[in-house]
Amino acid sequence: MERHFEVELQALRDRLLAMGSLAETMIHKGIKSLVDRDEGLVQAVLAHEEEMDLLCIEIDDRCFTQLALQQPMASDLRFLVSAIKINSDLERIGDQASSIALRARSLIAQPQLKPLIDIPRMATVVQEMVRNSLDAFVRQDPELARNVIDRDDEVDNLRDQVFRELLTYMMGDSTTIPRALELILISRNLERIADHATNIAEDVIYIVRGEDVRERGDKELRKGLRLPTPKGS
Amino acid sequence: MERHFEVELQALRDRLLAMGSLAETMIHKGIKSLVDRDEGLVQAVLAHEEEMDLLCIEIDDRCFTQLALQQPMASDLRFLVSAIKINSDLERIGDQASSIALRARSLIAQPQLKPLIDIPRMATVVQEMVRNSLDAFVRQDPELARNVIDRDDEVDNLRDQVFRELLTYMMGDSTTIPRALELILISRNLERIADHATNIAEDVIYIVRGEDVRERGDKELRKGLRLPTPKGS
Repeated sequence: MERHFEVELQALRDRLLAMGSLAETMIHKGIKSLVDRDEGLVQAVLAHEEEMDLLCIEIDDRCFTQLALQQPMASDLRFLVSAIKINSDLERIGDQASSIALRARSLIAQPQLKPLIDIPRMATVVQEMVRNSLDAFVRQDPELARNVIDRDDEVDNLRDQVFRELLTYMMGDSTTIPRALELILISRNLERIADHATNIAEDVIYIVRGEDVRERGDKELRKGLRLPTPKGS
Repeated sequence: MERHFEVELQALRDRLLAMGSLAETMIHKGIKSLVDRDEGLVQAVLAHEEEMDLLCIEIDDRCFTQLALQQPMASDLRFLVSAIKINSDLERIGDQASSIALRARSLIAQPQLKPLIDIPRMATVVQEMVRNSLDAFVRQDPELARNVIDRDDEVDNLRDQVFRELLTYMMGDSTTIPRALELILISRNLERIADHATNIAEDVIYIVRGEDVRERGDKELRKGLRLPTPKGS
């Protein structure tokens, strides 16, 4: 029975890794559909979303079954509870990637506003955060998890940069407003993905150290200030 | 032992209700701070956020302890796993309310753009969704949970209405753009709160019926189309 449980935990780890890698692919293709103006990639992301939903249900079922059958203690229990949370974060990352793809579809139908530089850069950072949060989970590596949490600031800076630049476009030429807004909302999708990767990294630290990393509250407060207005302190 | 477990589950239900009610208060005060242009209410929301974080950690600990000590089966296990998820959704609702309060702070520092009608209306619907999702949880009422899920469309319609109106302001007068953007982002915060309430309602249906409600994937796809552009199909 013990042996069987080990095999199950390993299978669970593998499924979560598969889901993480699918999430990464979705982000990559979503942004590429935007940059290359490629409707085929939009379709690909939406197809992945269905795979994602199935994987998510499968992982939840596996966790639940193990909790019920094995009644695990201590670190195995922490692992299973965290797997449920990580699963839910990965599913929501997939939702965000689909949202990016749909916004890309709407932008492809209009003339290009500007060559994109910071959004693809932001996407690269975000993909790395997702990959590293899952790697940290598999290797049970709190240092790598901490690194993911630290990179969230980089994403916030890029988000502000994207925002400022697009604001300039909007202020200068009102016909750009709808397209600029789509791009701003895409940067917000990426920001939310980074938040989910940060949640996963916090869960990893929780599994490994048994400690709670909840600076999230304070972080969100800092993040709430998203517009560079004079009074934004 | 059985008796003690029952008492613990009841305590857990009470704490989740307290957290739900705190989340509602935060939404209410956050929007009121915006409508009344009241900096004191911004402060109040931020203070609540700290209470929220403590409650969240306490609930997680309680769930974890019960999973470890009681090794519960079937419906109790489903209840505890769902409590962990609901707790996390409520915490994120609190984060969104804080983000609203901070945007309100930035708007208070600038001249009023327009009297607010649809955003407070949206907030009312969203608060009801949060309240009803928690009520559905306590009463184990799948009908009420279903009702919460159905109201998500109402929120999406209001979000689109807010968006269209503010787009008109932005197109007509570029000096309104920064303020209009803050208001659009507040409507997105409310939308995210509605999404969390919907997640809670889905968990309730899962607890009661043992079934999975994952139309989320499709829903997000529909939601991805946020801008009323011609090609947005």
